[in-house]
Amino acid sequence: MNYKEMTKKELLEELELVRQKYKEYLKCGLNLDMSRGKPSDEQLDLSNDILKIDTFKTKDGKDARNYGILDGIEEAKELFSDILDLPKENILIGGNSTLNMLYDCIARLYMFGDGENKPWHKYDKIKILCLVPGYDRHFDIMEEFGFEMININLTKDGFDIEKVRSLCKDDDSVKGIICVPVHSNPTGVCFSKKALENLASLETKAKDFKIFYDNAYAIHHIYENIEIDNIFKLCKKYDTLDRLLYFFSTSKITFAGGGISMLCGSDKTIEYTKRHLSKQTIGYDKIAQLKTVLFLKNKNNTIEHMKKHANILKPKFDIVFSKLEENFKDNAILSWENPKGGYFVSVNTEKNLAKEVVRLCKECGLILTNAGSTYPYKKDENNSNIRIAPSYPPLDELQTAMDIFCICVRLATLEKMTA
Amino acid sequence: MNYKEMTKKELLEELELVRQKYKEYLKCGLNLDMSRGKPSDEQLDLSNDILKIDTFKTKDGKDARNYGILDGIEEAKELFSDILDLPKENILIGGNSTLNMLYDCIARLYMFGDGENKPWHKYDKIKILCLVPGYDRHFDIMEEFGFEMININLTKDGFDIEKVRSLCKDDDSVKGIICVPVHSNPTGVCFSKKALENLASLETKAKDFKIFYDNAYAIHHIYENIEIDNIFKLCKKYDTLDRLLYFFSTSKITFAGGGISMLCGSDKTIEYTKRHLSKQTIGYDKIAQLKTVLFLKNKNNTIEHMKKHANILKPKFDIVFSKLEENFKDNAILSWENPKGGYFVSVNTEKNLAKEVVRLCKECGLILTNAGSTYPYKKDENNSNIRIAPSYPPLDELQTAMDIFCICVRLATLEKMTA
Repeated sequence: MNYKEMTKKELLEELELVRQKYKEYLKCGLNLDMSRGKPSDEQLDLSNDILKIDTFKTKDGKDARNYGILDGIEEAKELFSDILDLPKENILIGGNSTLNMLYDCIARLYMFGDGENKPWHKYDKIKILCLVPGYDRHFDIMEEFGFEMININLTKDGFDIEKVRSLCKDDDSVKGIICVPVHSNPTGVCFSKKALENLASLETKAKDFKIFYDNAYAIHHIYENIEIDNIFKLCKKYDTLDRLLYFFSTSKITFAGGGISMLCGSDKTIEYTKRHLSKQTIGYDKIAQLKTVLFLKNKNNTIEHMKKHANILKPKFDIVFSKLEENFKDNAILSWENPKGGYFVSVNTEKNLAKEVVRLCKECGLILTNAGSTYPYKKDENNSNIRIAPSYPPLDELQTAMDIFCICVRLATLEKMTA
Repeated sequence: MNYKEMTKKELLEELELVRQKYKEYLKCGLNLDMSRGKPSDEQLDLSNDILKIDTFKTKDGKDARNYGILDGIEEAKELFSDILDLPKENILIGGNSTLNMLYDCIARLYMFGDGENKPWHKYDKIKILCLVPGYDRHFDIMEEFGFEMININLTKDGFDIEKVRSLCKDDDSVKGIICVPVHSNPTGVCFSKKALENLASLETKAKDFKIFYDNAYAIHHIYENIEIDNIFKLCKKYDTLDRLLYFFSTSKITFAGGGISMLCGSDKTIEYTKRHLSKQTIGYDKIAQLKTVLFLKNKNNTIEHMKKHANILKPKFDIVFSKLEENFKDNAILSWENPKGGYFVSVNTEKNLAKEVVRLCKECGLILTNAGSTYPYKKDENNSNIRIAPSYPPLDELQTAMDIFCICVRLATLEKMTA
């Protein structure tokens, strides 16, 4: 059945049928929040043994219970170095949230600059390039600081490099770009070698241009193991290492609310960050660091652990794709991306229908991420992008949720087509 | 023996004897860092059971492992509310460091203001009143932001209120005062009812005047249980609650590097803080919060736990005082405070000798807090205040350390007197 080939009369008949089904779902009294990319209880259970680790001595004999070790315990640096192929000397371990670490880095740039250039608050305007659709919390931070966000479209394996180039070249107020390079939130884009080379070698007017590189899903593969090029090495090659702020965390490896985070950057960046950080804190929670390392051990073990996550996530993503195909393969009123990992499925309705679909779902008790949230200022000018987060609900609820979602897409589209 | 009553010849003879003793200590090869107020291993051991708690469900059935609960779990708010007699609705739970929380509050004022007045970075000058001698890390934060620090002398049970009054009354750039109201670092001053009333009722030109109230040692009694008046209630009485930023943590109750922190303020302050915090993080480590609550349980149990700390700390403070009395009771070349709790003993040498005493100690392998550190900009204009932190070393090492310290005070003083 293809709505686009149907007569008005057929569409009206279909609308009547779809409305009936929708009314049935309205009565179901579902109460399901799929708004965020939260791991499920089953996924969290994979790491429960971390709670049982009651050691407090680091491998070099330091006491993780006491003050000190501002930049994190050695073995935590070694773990991240192993997993991400980064020099451990260039790693700083943080608290339970990369978002917090990213925010603090931006706050530091805003308040104090990068150590060589004036603080960003001294500029009338700061512009940040935002890959779209993207992660709402990234955009929220930029908005918080009053930075102007400029949309850069994602492509299949990168982003609109020509637009980025032309914006950066002559404009000193273009100070940075923010991206999720692997299994991007929400589209699942993974950056090609070319995209990363472009990023590392970008010619920028601003001397304090920064790449906010949030590699949140670096090893969060579901359908395919993706290994992208090493941005640290590329930036080193192009002598642009001072622009790199590389973030990673174990939030979606161990516990979402109780992981540990990491910042990696040039010697200068790490030294500068530590200098300011030493005023901000005596040190992050080293018990959390030690537990994480003793639990995850090393790269190989962590990769094995991530396969267990994938085994739980895959059937959920399968449901999303099979429902989408069942409903829309021959009825092109909805398109979607096919991510190889990560936490989201990005779909696009016909123009100007996303908000209505989300509203209709909400009426049935299904909370989706607000339409628009995947764009800066929450403004999706096509009003068509919706982020589906299938990780949290159990399989049966997800089935129902996807049935509801598909009906809502049909209903909104039919109502518009027959209006 | 009183140096001030001795003849030059006697002083020179005494100098020779003291030099001999000092040379013996030089040979000892001691290696002891008494620069920070770190709890001892024995104190940390008191809380090892916290490591064994492997629950993750909050009492209202939430999952502490997952994302969410920005302002902290209910039972953590209840615990702090119980311990400090503060309304739990006005409490926000943070990460492992009050210093970080204090820094973030100041950064927020600097970047965004307090929600009703312009950001502090828009002012040419911001002045902060600093009680002296005080906590070096407080002063470091103020210096980091380029605020002008103004020394306010501590008194026996408060501070120079007349100076504070005259500075605040007509100067809009005087934006805050920072204090440790109980067992103050380093002098041990505890604020009287009058001092607190003065603080709460202070007339300030600045509408966005803030009291940075770091109650770090609220229940950290050693010789006497001190209970001061409730600043929250006083500020409420004088309708100045919006100026209060009240900090507390369990760093020196459970683990120094792995406690949880708290901010308490007016409804408006908490609402405003949460609004900005929601951009900065998804939430702090709730596993740490839950463990802390399950371990400390309630006020009574926490007070009992603090008595165990006191039992470990008291013999150490006893050594400090007995050595000081033995050496300087009848030889007024050194004066000291008698704190009733906390982590420090504040001593004053004769003018211009503190740096030399610290240097002499260092030569013997005894690291003290740098002289000057207890003052803004590290400038003790008398060069006489030294902070002794007796908590960390074992008793026998502390004995030796105090012997060395006393010899160094004698040596430096004699060298000056005979110069």
